[in-house]
Amino acid sequence: MKLLFINGVNLNMTGKREKSVYGSETLAEIDAEIAGFCEAHGAECEFFQSNLEGEICTRIQQSDADGIILNAGAFTHYSYAIRDAIASVQTPVVEVHMSNVAAREEFRHTSVIAPVCRGSVVGFGKMSYILAAGSFLL
Amino acid sequence: MKLLFINGVNLNMTGKREKSVYGSETLAEIDAEIAGFCEAHGAECEFFQSNLEGEICTRIQQSDADGIILNAGAFTHYSYAIRDAIASVQTPVVEVHMSNVAAREEFRHTSVIAPVCRGSVVGFGKMSYILAAGSFLL
Amino acid sequence: MKLLFINGVNLNMTGKREKSVYGSETLAEIDAEIAGFCEAHGAECEFFQSNLEGEICTRIQQSDADGIILNAGAFTHYSYAIRDAIASVQTPVVEVHMSNVAAREEFRHTSVIAPVCRGSVVGFGKMSYILAAGSFLL
Amino acid sequence: MKLLFINGVNLNMTGKREKSVYGSETLAEIDAEIAGFCEAHGAECEFFQSNLEGEICTRIQQSDADGIILNAGAFTHYSYAIRDAIASVQTPVVEVHMSNVAAREEFRHTSVIAPVCRGSVVGFGKMSYILAAGSFLL
Amino acid sequence: MKLLFINGVNLNMTGKREKSVYGSETLAEIDAEIAGFCEAHGAECEFFQSNLEGEICTRIQQSDADGIILNAGAFTHYSYAIRDAIASVQTPVVEVHMSNVAAREEFRHTSVIAPVCRGSVVGFGKMSYILAAGSFLL
Amino acid sequence: MKLLFINGVNLNMTGKREKSVYGSETLAEIDAEIAGFCEAHGAECEFFQSNLEGEICTRIQQSDADGIILNAGAFTHYSYAIRDAIASVQTPVVEVHMSNVAAREEFRHTSVIAPVCRGSVVGFGKMSYILAAGSFLL
Amino acid sequence: MKLLFINGVNLNMTGKREKSVYGSETLAEIDAEIAGFCEAHGAECEFFQSNLEGEICTRIQQSDADGIILNAGAFTHYSYAIRDAIASVQTPVVEVHMSNVAAREEFRHTSVIAPVCRGSVVGFGKMSYILAAGSFLL
Amino acid sequence: MKLLFINGVNLNMTGKREKSVYGSETLAEIDAEIAGFCEAHGAECEFFQSNLEGEICTRIQQSDADGIILNAGAFTHYSYAIRDAIASVQTPVVEVHMSNVAAREEFRHTSVIAPVCRGSVVGFGKMSYILAAGSFLL
Amino acid sequence: MKLLFINGVNLNMTGKREKSVYGSETLAEIDAEIAGFCEAHGAECEFFQSNLEGEICTRIQQSDADGIILNAGAFTHYSYAIRDAIASVQTPVVEVHMSNVAAREEFRHTSVIAPVCRGSVVGFGKMSYILAAGSFLL
Amino acid sequence: MKLLFINGVNLNMTGKREKSVYGSETLAEIDAEIAGFCEAHGAECEFFQSNLEGEICTRIQQSDADGIILNAGAFTHYSYAIRDAIASVQTPVVEVHMSNVAAREEFRHTSVIAPVCRGSVVGFGKMSYILAAGSFLL
Amino acid sequence: MKLLFINGVNLNMTGKREKSVYGSETLAEIDAEIAGFCEAHGAECEFFQSNLEGEICTRIQQSDADGIILNAGAFTHYSYAIRDAIASVQTPVVEVHMSNVAAREEFRHTSVIAPVCRGSVVGFGKMSYILAAGSFLL
Amino acid sequence: MKLLFINGVNLNMTGKREKSVYGSETLAEIDAEIAGFCEAHGAECEFFQSNLEGEICTRIQQSDADGIILNAGAFTHYSYAIRDAIASVQTPVVEVHMSNVAAREEFRHTSVIAPVCRGSVVGFGKMSYILAAGSFLL
Repeated sequence: MKLLFINGVNLNMTGKREKSVYGSETLAEIDAEIAGFCEAHGAECEFFQSNLEGEICTRIQQSDADGIILNAGAFTHYSYAIRDAIASVQTPVVEVHMSNVAAREEFRHTSVIAPVCRGSVVGFGKMSYILAAGSFLL
Repeated sequence: MKLLFINGVNLNMTGKREKSVYGSETLAEIDAEIAGFCEAHGAECEFFQSNLEGEICTRIQQSDADGIILNAGAFTHYSYAIRDAIASVQTPVVEVHMSNVAAREEFRHTSVIAPVCRGSVVGFGKMSYILAAGSFLL
Repeated sequence: MKLLFINGVNLNMTGKREKSVYGSETLAEIDAEIAGFCEAHGAECEFFQSNLEGEICTRIQQSDADGIILNAGAFTHYSYAIRDAIASVQTPVVEVHMSNVAAREEFRHTSVIAPVCRGSVVGFGKMSYILAAGSFLL
Repeated sequence: MKLLFINGVNLNMTGKREKSVYGSETLAEIDAEIAGFCEAHGAECEFFQSNLEGEICTRIQQSDADGIILNAGAFTHYSYAIRDAIASVQTPVVEVHMSNVAAREEFRHTSVIAPVCRGSVVGFGKMSYILAAGSFLL
Repeated sequence: MKLLFINGVNLNMTGKREKSVYGSETLAEIDAEIAGFCEAHGAECEFFQSNLEGEICTRIQQSDADGIILNAGAFTHYSYAIRDAIASVQTPVVEVHMSNVAAREEFRHTSVIAPVCRGSVVGFGKMSYILAAGSFLL
Repeated sequence: MKLLFINGVNLNMTGKREKSVYGSETLAEIDAEIAGFCEAHGAECEFFQSNLEGEICTRIQQSDADGIILNAGAFTHYSYAIRDAIASVQTPVVEVHMSNVAAREEFRHTSVIAPVCRGSVVGFGKMSYILAAGSFLL
Repeated sequence: MKLLFINGVNLNMTGKREKSVYGSETLAEIDAEIAGFCEAHGAECEFFQSNLEGEICTRIQQSDADGIILNAGAFTHYSYAIRDAIASVQTPVVEVHMSNVAAREEFRHTSVIAPVCRGSVVGFGKMSYILAAGSFLL
Repeated sequence: MKLLFINGVNLNMTGKREKSVYGSETLAEIDAEIAGFCEAHGAECEFFQSNLEGEICTRIQQSDADGIILNAGAFTHYSYAIRDAIASVQTPVVEVHMSNVAAREEFRHTSVIAPVCRGSVVGFGKMSYILAAGSFLL
Repeated sequence: MKLLFINGVNLNMTGKREKSVYGSETLAEIDAEIAGFCEAHGAECEFFQSNLEGEICTRIQQSDADGIILNAGAFTHYSYAIRDAIASVQTPVVEVHMSNVAAREEFRHTSVIAPVCRGSVVGFGKMSYILAAGSFLL
Repeated sequence: MKLLFINGVNLNMTGKREKSVYGSETLAEIDAEIAGFCEAHGAECEFFQSNLEGEICTRIQQSDADGIILNAGAFTHYSYAIRDAIASVQTPVVEVHMSNVAAREEFRHTSVIAPVCRGSVVGFGKMSYILAAGSFLL
Repeated sequence: MKLLFINGVNLNMTGKREKSVYGSETLAEIDAEIAGFCEAHGAECEFFQSNLEGEICTRIQQSDADGIILNAGAFTHYSYAIRDAIASVQTPVVEVHMSNVAAREEFRHTSVIAPVCRGSVVGFGKMSYILAAGSFLL
Repeated sequence: MKLLFINGVNLNMTGKREKSVYGSETLAEIDAEIAGFCEAHGAECEFFQSNLEGEICTRIQQSDADGIILNAGAFTHYSYAIRDAIASVQTPVVEVHMSNVAAREEFRHTSVIAPVCRGSVVGFGKMSYILAAGSFLL
């Protein structure tokens, strides 16, 4: 089994910005932990980050993974382009957020991609990625 | 560590109704699987189901667990009473739904309890409970 | 054929309150007339009233009737719990109101249970119950 | 007692179109059954169908019936003209729909005529007309 | 100078219905008074009433009057057809209502024709027509 | 009979500003014409203008006129204070606007004072005042 | 192949009104050009115009054409009656507008008939009809 | 004179939870102070608390007090059931909140019970109950 | 302790207008009763009434009282100016209404000043002022 | 004459995904057919596809074509950037959709680019492109 | 060149209230700094502050300055009176706010005067006035 | 001190398009003037323009300037991605628009980035950039 982890816009700043919200580990450090979890469960994994909405669409279209774990960042709230990219592939996609978006600004309460995802895991920091992976591996 | 699993209104019908949405396992069968997962991770667990909103509030108030996993069913969408019960205790609460509520009727897109929960796990059938437990145990 | 008549919150006050809206017959007197109509058409009938939303859900779940006639009272306008209870059973449910809710306060114009009922009979006083029964018996 | 049955726009297509929604009996066949019911209860009845909103207003204004049973079709959702026509006469009007409009498109959830009708009967196919007649005859 | 007075749907019932709202004079009687006023000011006048929206559009299109006084009745609130008919002619149109629509039901607070009329006179009973005529004749 | 004409905020600029909207006659010139009309119909008249909302309320409260013609200017759209002042007196108040507010900016489409006025005359330039006076004098 | 072209309310004024919006050719002249195009592609065509909503419904119901090209005019924005008429027949209907309605008043941005049409062609003047015909003939 | 004090859902947690919002006195301690105030003014008093919406309705229906002081907690914002219970009795009901709900979350700004209460006292901590009692006793 | 009672626009009409809503005592008579209550509790009191929003702001800014009791009248519903004046001072302000605003027109359901007040007392006629004073003195 | 066909995000998946919605021809195959049509009408044509919103803006800015046919895909519903790009050039742009967006999800009912396009062609599959080209070539 | 600086309601409290929002310099001190900046750029300046909306309108109407810099305070959000005063004069008006209103309460996000101003400068404390002056002087 | 000027989508067209809105100077010419102003005040400056939302995010993340002046163009109205990029850095960002967006289309009235910027300067053409720079340099 192969899992693809996609991180959207500004998630390259994780651990460098707003540490009270996102913690102080960098994305690379988090990816390493995720990779450890995947390996332990016999799965292969890939990581992709982009600030460009269109590149994320393309990556989703081209994926040969068995599952995609997607933290679309701010794109979550308005990118119908990513929504359509998800709908255009067979691969199941799981939506992930590190913070509890329901407890933050109003605009973060809407996810335009949720209806075409299999499910979502929200609010557990880096653990959100691992639980999402767990939905394929446990 | 002790975890309390609370299931709200109509979830006693799981496995007996709308099997295309909720699967064909009964709540008791699902509880057994969850218990297995908890034990395997060295945790104690309790299960509570009620169709009465007020009883769920009372159960949350009286819990001595280290974490609560709550599938409030339809109460999710309007019970500010349960929201306030969650806010009145220190115990972290994780919101769970078996189906992907974002892909169902409009009224299911709003969760009035999400802002006071630690996080949420949505859309993975019975696995939603296990991943939510995993947020405490993994 | 067996019909179950369920009356929700505050309907135990029928005939005792706001007589200009609901008339001066008590619920017991109305039930007696309904029972007469059912018998005359060869049907058995049961009556259930509760002020507790959850008890109404449970009663719907456990019914072995061939049809349910439901006046949910104020629950009509926000109880997604009762809606889900109706959706969880095979028994057809007919929604009933004694007063013409469309001519009253704004909040009474929305019925969250109507979409999962077979149909509705609204505005005919106690006759609403009898016409609803008639939808099974005539 | 005399009852007038008015059918609005497109109801002349009943039994000829969308049979999954409206059944396969034509309006004439349904009218015949209604007439049977009325006769059996000692009432006279008349039938009127028009695709023209203004003709329906005029017909309501000129009616000498003791009661009007009105299925306004799509006019239900926006014809304040018909609403005012109903309000301008003493004759009680009962609103009827064959399908359960609450379970269909959003726009069908609003009835601008309901507040000035005596009541409504919704969702029972041709039986809706008979129950509405029953509100006068039973 | 020639003035055309158009009365829309249900206004043929004036003086026959809801007398507390519209007074007890019939439309014919009111027309006679208006005619008196017009004559006194040296103007010719015509009267047209229809319950059919489309006939009102046609009448507006074909008018050779110098001004139109229009009480569209309930059509005021939704007939974009009449709005477009007004916009399609050079003749100035004055909107008239006998009752103070702002003090009645919510739906009467919106006039879809007002933006394409020259002005409006609202709330003075039959005097509304005379004042509207006065806007051409005084 | 005595009529009081009240002009609200910025109407002292009439004839000095935005002449394409309000014409080029000053308020004093318009008042003179109105006075002529009133005299000709045997009525006394008074004129009051203020840019202060509260002064307009006080003037309405203290009026001993038989009728008030009120062009509240921009206050029309939000001054519940003036609305309550109108409601607190027996004197009938007629709302007046020189321009056709329905054809201008969105915010001008709402009048918070209309529901407590007897009626309104809108869109006829200075003639609006005269027609409003006519509602008392013709 | 036979095509039916239906023009709704006020379109009989085409070329006679608001020429900056609709051009200066009359409907008859436009029909002639359309007929030319149809003939050139071996199709028969019929033309129907009415200001009466109900007549348009009836015409749609009775059509034996292979395709209907419909410019409903202002009815586009509120006639659920026409919508239901379209839905009640098998004949594919193409919605047409001469002007670009999206660039005009807010109320023209909503088409209540679009969801039940096969498609729409908007903004090309008389060419809109020809392109709509082309959708059947090219 | 007899007064009944009803506390709704989660108010049994007063003094035990969110002390910055509700203070550190328990409900029992507050009740004692209220009782002191009532006695000092020669009134009898009763106290009732429930987390069950339906039980609160029943208690209101069965009360023989001269006045009810009701802090419905979170039910305030959506319980049309309690609203109808209040409307079904003659006893005047005063709404009470300890915190200033207008300064808290959006959903707390709406009270569905306020329109059927005599009045409300909001924002004075335990003093809110005493002032509400004062409305009967001072 | 010194208390300042501020009455806003149109409250000078109390007892002179709409007696069914506000009672028949004048503001001066009510003030006298309030003064009696304050004296009895050893407090000094001042009274201020103005129809001018800006004067109310200035009075709030300049107050040296220990508490302000404010009935802002219609300003309650839109005066962000008064809201900001309240926020700019340390003195606690209590909002007061004589009638139950929640049971009146829609626009009276919103108070823009409530969020910056300490609390509010609504619906008890002149007793509302006394209870508000009691929040400082009891 | 030269025409530029721009396809936005995810349209590179045409014929590879959701075939029930978009058909089974690939974009390249469709482009070939379009090219055939253009050639047959003596026009030159170019094709551009991108998943990147900004690249589409740039392409529009740099075009030297006589007309642009644009299927913006999901960008249609929120890309004010593309809207402004269209507004910044003289070249007329025609909006195209293969599916009937009015019959799909709510969010697809809004086009933010339509108001600055010349017109739109919606719902005819690949024929939509050809008809749009026809608006320049027929 | 002459510039007029107008400060609206509650700005006389600047430096005396909410210092965390508005800083601790008084309006007089800020005015002195602004005057220094104007002088240094060869411009004359005047200052006006009022808590009365109507006085601000009058001052705008009577200004002979070449430019007005206006901080309307809370009036910004609802005073259509001030908006109309600005629209009634030729003098360009620049809107100023010291705090970043977009980051504060919802109601501060709307400026009803912005559409008739030349531009706005928001969020730079006292520097906002100087930059606004700079728009005339730099 | 170093300032970074970022121009978003379509601003590369400045001076080439819609000259009535944006003037006829090109972006390069405007940049030169800005550079002159910065130099004159002893500051270093950089310029960046991109049509790609993601590149703007990246540029904000990587900036080592002391201040950023950002004209996000159409991205202003929906790019939560840019908003989050601004929030993720310490550098203060000032929002700039050349035209007065409040006086243009409805969609331009909302800025999703304003709440995380220090302030904004709107409506002064190229002078907007210079005033924004002035907020750092004056």
